[in-house]
Amino acid sequence: MRVSKGQATKAAILDEAVGIASRVGFNALTIGQLAEQTGMSKSGLFAHFRSKEALQLETLERGRERFTDLVIRPTLSRPRGIERVRALLDNWLVWETEALQGGCIFVTGSIEYDDQPGPMRDALVRNQRDWAEFIATVAGTAVSEGDFRADLDTEQFAFTLQGLMYAYHHTARLLHDPKALDHTRAAVDQLIAAASA
Amino acid sequence: MRVSKGQATKAAILDEAVGIASRVGFNALTIGQLAEQTGMSKSGLFAHFRSKEALQLETLERGRERFTDLVIRPTLSRPRGIERVRALLDNWLVWETEALQGGCIFVTGSIEYDDQPGPMRDALVRNQRDWAEFIATVAGTAVSEGDFRADLDTEQFAFTLQGLMYAYHHTARLLHDPKALDHTRAAVDQLIAAASA
Repeated sequence: MRVSKGQATKAAILDEAVGIASRVGFNALTIGQLAEQTGMSKSGLFAHFRSKEALQLETLERGRERFTDLVIRPTLSRPRGIERVRALLDNWLVWETEALQGGCIFVTGSIEYDDQPGPMRDALVRNQRDWAEFIATVAGTAVSEGDFRADLDTEQFAFTLQGLMYAYHHTARLLHDPKALDHTRAAVDQLIAAASA
Repeated sequence: MRVSKGQATKAAILDEAVGIASRVGFNALTIGQLAEQTGMSKSGLFAHFRSKEALQLETLERGRERFTDLVIRPTLSRPRGIERVRALLDNWLVWETEALQGGCIFVTGSIEYDDQPGPMRDALVRNQRDWAEFIATVAGTAVSEGDFRADLDTEQFAFTLQGLMYAYHHTARLLHDPKALDHTRAAVDQLIAAASA
């Protein structure tokens, strides 16, 4: 697929917006702030996005694309089973630690919009459901390949794994705790050991 | 200790502020919004708090007091060991599910201020450190009473437990997932089983 110059410009602008949302949240992401950050005119940005909410929604969608490229695709390229589960974890940690300076935008958005009905909340709910189902499906490949117990509750596995990543997010970002990554890896190892056949 | 009428009024105002922060976050908590909610005049509230930041800090402090009353005190009144660990979990879940309509203000605050240096961030970091140490200490009573393994890493235990509560917060509040509480309890049971002697 050819990407036009206009599309490439928009993606580059949205990458800046993803960076801002990561640092200060979606509520503080405005067309004015994006203009400052990119050096583009406000009127030029209005032509792209028309409203603050449209900008927020497109920023979230751009974040989803990048998460897909960085986490989901390389995970699916690995063999089914425990190897794919391990790949999911490693790729997810890259996302959490390296992809965005201000940490995962889905965690931030989830806290901002959990009590605010509307299109942003709906989009975040869809993302979150998709992601929980993806984790459960990958864990399911480890069940069917015989790496994980046949009676493993894969939904429960996904729930606990998400909790460990939230703990990583909070501990690393708020406390700057140098042990956050080690604690996360140790807890994940414990979770995998308990799931193993 | 006698509580004066002025102190009681201030606590009642701050309880309203805790409720607002729980629903919309600390950034959206303003003296104007608090005036609307309490029916008090803005100038009267200014006399109490002087600035938005002072209001935010006192609201966080009031939240800490309530958390201490609802979670920490009743936990410490139980016998050392697994019984106290279980009490900590039960009380924490009451805090998460019933105390505040919009969910835990420490989770919300942690996401809002993790990239914003200042007195709010510092206060949140202190709270979070105190809480992680409290969990580890309670788990330590289960080690010394022989309920938990002698080689248990109590810091790691606290980390994982916090993760499960974050998962509860996100899953229950954003997704309104009816299984959130069951998943949390099952994961906690697994964590306790792995820790047990």
